[in-house]
Amino acid sequence: MKKIVVDCFGGDRSPAAQVAGAVQASQAIDDVFLILSGDETQIKAELDKISSADLGRFEILHAPDVVSPGDKPTDAIRMKKDSSLMKAVSLLRDDDTVAGMVSCGSSGAVVASGTLRIGRLRGVQRPAFCPILPTMTGGVVGVCDSGANVSCTAEYLQQFAVMGSLYLKNVYGIESPRVALLNVGVEAEKGDDLHKEAYALLSETEDLNFCGNMESRDFLSGQFDLVVSDGFSGNVLIKSTEGTALELLKKIKKDIYSRFVYKMGALLMKKMFMEEKSFMDYQKYGGSVLLGTKKIIIKGHGSSKDLAVAKCIEQAVRMEKSCLNEQTEEWICRLPSAKC
Amino acid sequence: MKKIVVDCFGGDRSPAAQVAGAVQASQAIDDVFLILSGDETQIKAELDKISSADLGRFEILHAPDVVSPGDKPTDAIRMKKDSSLMKAVSLLRDDDTVAGMVSCGSSGAVVASGTLRIGRLRGVQRPAFCPILPTMTGGVVGVCDSGANVSCTAEYLQQFAVMGSLYLKNVYGIESPRVALLNVGVEAEKGDDLHKEAYALLSETEDLNFCGNMESRDFLSGQFDLVVSDGFSGNVLIKSTEGTALELLKKIKKDIYSRFVYKMGALLMKKMFMEEKSFMDYQKYGGSVLLGTKKIIIKGHGSSKDLAVAKCIEQAVRMEKSCLNEQTEEWICRLPSAKC
Repeated sequence: MKKIVVDCFGGDRSPAAQVAGAVQASQAIDDVFLILSGDETQIKAELDKISSADLGRFEILHAPDVVSPGDKPTDAIRMKKDSSLMKAVSLLRDDDTVAGMVSCGSSGAVVASGTLRIGRLRGVQRPAFCPILPTMTGGVVGVCDSGANVSCTAEYLQQFAVMGSLYLKNVYGIESPRVALLNVGVEAEKGDDLHKEAYALLSETEDLNFCGNMESRDFLSGQFDLVVSDGFSGNVLIKSTEGTALELLKKIKKDIYSRFVYKMGALLMKKMFMEEKSFMDYQKYGGSVLLGTKKIIIKGHGSSKDLAVAKCIEQAVRMEKSCLNEQTEEWICRLPSAKC
Repeated sequence: MKKIVVDCFGGDRSPAAQVAGAVQASQAIDDVFLILSGDETQIKAELDKISSADLGRFEILHAPDVVSPGDKPTDAIRMKKDSSLMKAVSLLRDDDTVAGMVSCGSSGAVVASGTLRIGRLRGVQRPAFCPILPTMTGGVVGVCDSGANVSCTAEYLQQFAVMGSLYLKNVYGIESPRVALLNVGVEAEKGDDLHKEAYALLSETEDLNFCGNMESRDFLSGQFDLVVSDGFSGNVLIKSTEGTALELLKKIKKDIYSRFVYKMGALLMKKMFMEEKSFMDYQKYGGSVLLGTKKIIIKGHGSSKDLAVAKCIEQAVRMEKSCLNEQTEEWICRLPSAKC
């Protein structure tokens, strides 16, 4: 039985979405036991609403406090020990039978507590987020880092490439992930010093399938499996991709309602439009894994609904079955810059 | 009569699109005279193809050489004096009657020659690109810088805010442009040191309508008129916005052809789909103005067609009629950090 702890607070739809998502995951996966962290009364009330929930598959870890987006991450760790996040993190650290954690709370606090309380894998300089998005050719593409590290060195970027490649290989079955460096142009000499140096390091990284620079306009094209970036521009990339797709679909919907004949046409295409909407729905793709920590940590979108939470839990279970951490330590320690 | 010099080479569709675009612009604007820079024989051949062209409105500036995307910008300036770009830049610098230049060639060479040959306005530390995109609410939004400066200081970002605000006010008629700083979160303390420092500087800039940080997902929402960013993340922002919109429309088109009933529906919505496509078509919105140089320089998209080139020329004429440069020098020199 895999044990996963779910931080039930800190998201926009907490705790309802977290509890309902946990129930969904428990019904989809046979061998998972879920520990729900947060205010006991509220979590119980949410569980009681779902008649199909098998209560033998859950345990509540009472935590009266909540880390809010405004809390400074390091303060949250020191001052909010009784929060749903920090209680979950402590359990993850101290209990060998708990394999992973899912949280939709503050990214900063998840990164800080993951790094400082759970600890990094051997040789890893900085854990990094790696969300997965759908490409236009039916595959997926990962971005590492998407926001855990707003300031980076070229060596961090090299490690992101290694961690992300192994993640896509082990968890998504992509044998030799095609890795690109996010840059302002495709030529090797493009970008600032950080990106020029990272290009050189990636080029000489053994066993890495490095394909050169990528401009952000090619992100969804299906040409690459992993995009390596500093956390700042990676964050700009995924949020603008998500924002543009959502805004455009919203606009199309609005325009459809502007004329009767469009409404008629849209009626014939209803199934297609629902598929387009579902295609760009981040809820289906789970959360951002924090790669490089000793235990599995998954950060869901702040506005995650039930489905997204369930997918994050499924993702944690899938990761637990892989040998990602061992392989990551082994490859990172082979890098010339490694301190292992 | 406004004189504008058009670099007819260096774009993907050169010189056909540049010459045809120049003819279009000459027909749309009464008082413009266009100087076409590049290989005389080829430009003449293109002009001859267009029977409606009024040859009295054009002059050819013969330039046998071309700056290619692979040329290092500073090398292009020193070694390619006979290129269509450098001949155009020299004319712009030396001839007081020439008001501006349009080029669809190498961005790096345009920035370098604009900065080094044309020169910066008084007090301006770094010229910056400011493309304009459509928002979902029917307005426009500018991004400054979108790639001229991949490494920035907070003072540069403050100047980009000033230059961009005056551009949107003078050329797009937005009285008090709402300015946002591109960042990884909306809270003031988000981002790396550069962005924290820029946030503080922007907050204390007199007469600037600074509205705080913006996450890239809100770029097209219509909440802001100008997004201030370092050139690296600004470049990621506009190219991913453009790429996502184009890829999504391409996917919808492909899906329509997958089933007969969708094709029927799409037939009823043909006009709407054409409007959506046109809405996201960068060709309509002209090029990226290089703000902060002594004369008007407009960089068109490398893949510009006729329409985009014509719009760039119209943009140059519109700018020439404004008092942008005087106002920019005046405001920049009022900044506490100014060296005027």
